[in-house]
Amino acid sequence: MSFHSDSIDAVVFDVFGTVVDWRTSIIREGRDLGTRKGIDADWEAFADAWRGKYQPSMEKVRAGERPWTRLDDLHRESLLELIHEFGLEGLDDGEIDHFNRAWHRLDPWPDSVDGLTRLKARYIIATLSNGNIALLLNMAKRAGLPWDAILGAEPARAYKPMPESYLRTAAFLGLPASRVMLCAAHNDDLAAARSHGYRTAFVRRPTEYGPHQNRDLEAEHDFDVIGESIIEVAEELGC
Amino acid sequence: MSFHSDSIDAVVFDVFGTVVDWRTSIIREGRDLGTRKGIDADWEAFADAWRGKYQPSMEKVRAGERPWTRLDDLHRESLLELIHEFGLEGLDDGEIDHFNRAWHRLDPWPDSVDGLTRLKARYIIATLSNGNIALLLNMAKRAGLPWDAILGAEPARAYKPMPESYLRTAAFLGLPASRVMLCAAHNDDLAAARSHGYRTAFVRRPTEYGPHQNRDLEAEHDFDVIGESIIEVAEELGC
Repeated sequence: MSFHSDSIDAVVFDVFGTVVDWRTSIIREGRDLGTRKGIDADWEAFADAWRGKYQPSMEKVRAGERPWTRLDDLHRESLLELIHEFGLEGLDDGEIDHFNRAWHRLDPWPDSVDGLTRLKARYIIATLSNGNIALLLNMAKRAGLPWDAILGAEPARAYKPMPESYLRTAAFLGLPASRVMLCAAHNDDLAAARSHGYRTAFVRRPTEYGPHQNRDLEAEHDFDVIGESIIEVAEELGC
Repeated sequence: MSFHSDSIDAVVFDVFGTVVDWRTSIIREGRDLGTRKGIDADWEAFADAWRGKYQPSMEKVRAGERPWTRLDDLHRESLLELIHEFGLEGLDDGEIDHFNRAWHRLDPWPDSVDGLTRLKARYIIATLSNGNIALLLNMAKRAGLPWDAILGAEPARAYKPMPESYLRTAAFLGLPASRVMLCAAHNDDLAAARSHGYRTAFVRRPTEYGPHQNRDLEAEHDFDVIGESIIEVAEELGC
């Protein structure tokens, strides 16, 4: 391995898909809601449909077509667009707010807490996520994710993969980008970070998008570290 | 006590003086530097002089006389102004950078880690400090301060006591100000936070400014909680 573990000071993480299993968690939240409210929907299709609106909703912010809007608000707008298709008309405003915060209650992959805890003993560990601060903070408290800092799109006021999201995060850490590693399950996120000087760790999450996933099954670039889990990434970094 | 501990979700902290003993720590850093470099300065007077430039340096940013500038940069400018008075001409740029980061190496008061750890089990705990993110993060890693999030002037882009520092911090937490408590050793900080809807906890730090301290010796307003330490504040909140 040409990469030296003492050449970085911080490991920052993509969160949705990399640290937490959003799809299984949203399906679980949907099924719980369905049981409580007597709604018989296809919750797998619902989870995919909600997440399907994620990139388009951020794209309007990235393109400057609308002012900075935090992800909680984008998620809620997307949810409202799915009300009729999935038979959610019976929810009142408070129930919609609670269901929207399902993204605050995502479960970690089985290796995440252990892997992060190992890395934290040697490195600064922080989020570099498009999730807003409250979402990531409530998720961390519930799941036991031991972040040193909650960084990403909201403090940087730029959604990944905009350059400012990576550059301002390194600046917040007081580090040159070359001393920060991004860990993510997504080739495009890592390639963007690398183009701005970050070191990179790919973690394979072949079921993030469900049993028929056809993207990000393998690392498509020569990233610094590649692992099957965050524990493996930690081990590669000597933790 | 009229205050109910379940009426808040987060306790945010002033840091300099409230959580860490900046004066003793800067004196220690000065003495260490003096020993290494053969500089015989009055390090107590130096610590007071450096801190004395703190409020005036932020005031130019608050007043809009200069663009947003993080505290590390203000501290360095203030340090350069003290070079001749304290005989620090022999330091090169790297040594000045290292000494400037003395503010990243401040020691906590003896009760801080225990008090914060107790509060963290029940509440979100975060910084609401004028320190920049890297300063607070490096301090936390070194001192073992178990913050859930590093918030304050840099992500809010407003130095306390500007209203935006308090209001944007509550917004980042996704909470109304009324469900956030500021814990601080300074009457003016708490009074400002309270005027924007925060709950308040005064912790007495009668030696923050040294043996002749003549300010903030007592709570001057009817704050929700008053304690002799962060442990006492935690106990008052049922932690």
